[in-house]
Amino acid sequence: MSRRDTDITRVHEWNDGRVEARQDDLAAEEPLEIRVGGHSLTVTMRTPGNDFELAAGFLFTEGIVESPEQIVAIREAAGTKITERGNVVEVELSPDVKLDLESTRRNFFAASSCGICGKASIESVRLRGIRAVNPNFRVTPEILCGLPEKLKASQKVFSRTGGLHAAALFDHDGEMLAEREDIGRHNAVDKIVGWAVRANRVPLADCALVVSGRGGFEIVQKAAVAGIPLVASVSACSSLAVRLAREVGMTLAGFLRGRRFVVYAGGERLGLAAENVSLPFRA
Amino acid sequence: MSRRDTDITRVHEWNDGRVEARQDDLAAEEPLEIRVGGHSLTVTMRTPGNDFELAAGFLFTEGIVESPEQIVAIREAAGTKITERGNVVEVELSPDVKLDLESTRRNFFAASSCGICGKASIESVRLRGIRAVNPNFRVTPEILCGLPEKLKASQKVFSRTGGLHAAALFDHDGEMLAEREDIGRHNAVDKIVGWAVRANRVPLADCALVVSGRGGFEIVQKAAVAGIPLVASVSACSSLAVRLAREVGMTLAGFLRGRRFVVYAGGERLGLAAENVSLPFRA
Repeated sequence: MSRRDTDITRVHEWNDGRVEARQDDLAAEEPLEIRVGGHSLTVTMRTPGNDFELAAGFLFTEGIVESPEQIVAIREAAGTKITERGNVVEVELSPDVKLDLESTRRNFFAASSCGICGKASIESVRLRGIRAVNPNFRVTPEILCGLPEKLKASQKVFSRTGGLHAAALFDHDGEMLAEREDIGRHNAVDKIVGWAVRANRVPLADCALVVSGRGGFEIVQKAAVAGIPLVASVSACSSLAVRLAREVGMTLAGFLRGRRFVVYAGGERLGLAAENVSLPFRA
Repeated sequence: MSRRDTDITRVHEWNDGRVEARQDDLAAEEPLEIRVGGHSLTVTMRTPGNDFELAAGFLFTEGIVESPEQIVAIREAAGTKITERGNVVEVELSPDVKLDLESTRRNFFAASSCGICGKASIESVRLRGIRAVNPNFRVTPEILCGLPEKLKASQKVFSRTGGLHAAALFDHDGEMLAEREDIGRHNAVDKIVGWAVRANRVPLADCALVVSGRGGFEIVQKAAVAGIPLVASVSACSSLAVRLAREVGMTLAGFLRGRRFVVYAGGERLGLAAENVSLPFRA
């Protein structure tokens, strides 16, 4: 049983003093438990849909599996109660994956041995394995500017609910390869990466990732593990996201709206090498 | 040593074919480790600032402490390395708080015994303790519509970076009591609740909480534990957030923009009782 990606509910809309009672679509949010070998690995709040991709992407971007072949099977967990059905997936890993559940869980939140700072956070991403970030990938600014519209046009759940994040992969010509939505920005990216893992397309060396929200650390981290050379967000990027992008040689753009964007790292992939920049740095 | 809430970096801005190299403010994102009794409880990516409030609010909204008196002291952890300094806080709890670190950590991600579904998620919030949600709190729609502007006007870091979430508490007259910003929506709410815990103002029975992003489950959950009777978001609300708000008797509004909002639960606090609604439900 797959669960719905939207719920219908009754609401009141107040509009300049006028009140209307009507029905409204809500983006669905439900927990998904990912089990490995019968043991709970994590629970994430997600929008139902593409749950197997979400599980595959999570395992890959968290560094638990390093290749698609290490995922033998993904299925809905058997024997769960009616109310849980569709909210628990069971992953079978190949015997060569050594998974220490306790230590993996601990790593989701606990301090790495080298400390709690931006540098340590970046180091912990390296430990998960950064795929070589393709130095030859190129996208023109003109093509980049057209991607948010394509992303928005493909957002089926968003168009009904007005409340969902999206992530999409494009090739250098601006052709959309895959698009996924979720209430969680990180889940949308995991679904995209999981799609690629299951299609045996990682590393994603010839793709640009566009996300509907901010470009934060976790987005850049997941893209780096998947080997994506260019990430663009329609909103702001964080300090740690910029540092990570620069360290791994990724192109990171933000505020991609209309015919404008800001490049924080790797401008050469957009043809913005130093020699093309006419104005001096301001103090 | 307190860490900066913004970082300055060099960027390229592409604007309709014209490229400018300039400096830009980035919202800072760094890990914060919260330790209890010398042991790591959690690590969250946050924007530095109000870290003690963030720790207090986290402990309270996660149900680890139930009253302000149970937090004896919060201080910066001693002996951490230079690069970590300001990123580790140590909380001293009163001896009556029985904290099973392993089981608490496990609860951050693992399945509760009653299952993985929306219902179980709501039950787990009940276990943290919902403060009585004041049935007598009232805000007029006119006052509610004015709150997002007040929130935006007070966002100091956002105005520099364009990239931060905010949460603020208002009284029934629309007077702002506290405002906090963070790269994480949930952290902004924890900072607000932590402010109230440290000021001995919980439960927040006479306050409205306004958040800059979506109204998702975790936002409503934290507000419910703090006893806040009305939550309004400028964006969409999720299915599970609406269900939780209805179960605990909270007012939940979304799409609060200009002179319009949508009410998902508890319309009576906004004077939108059934008898004031003139139009029939659509099929």
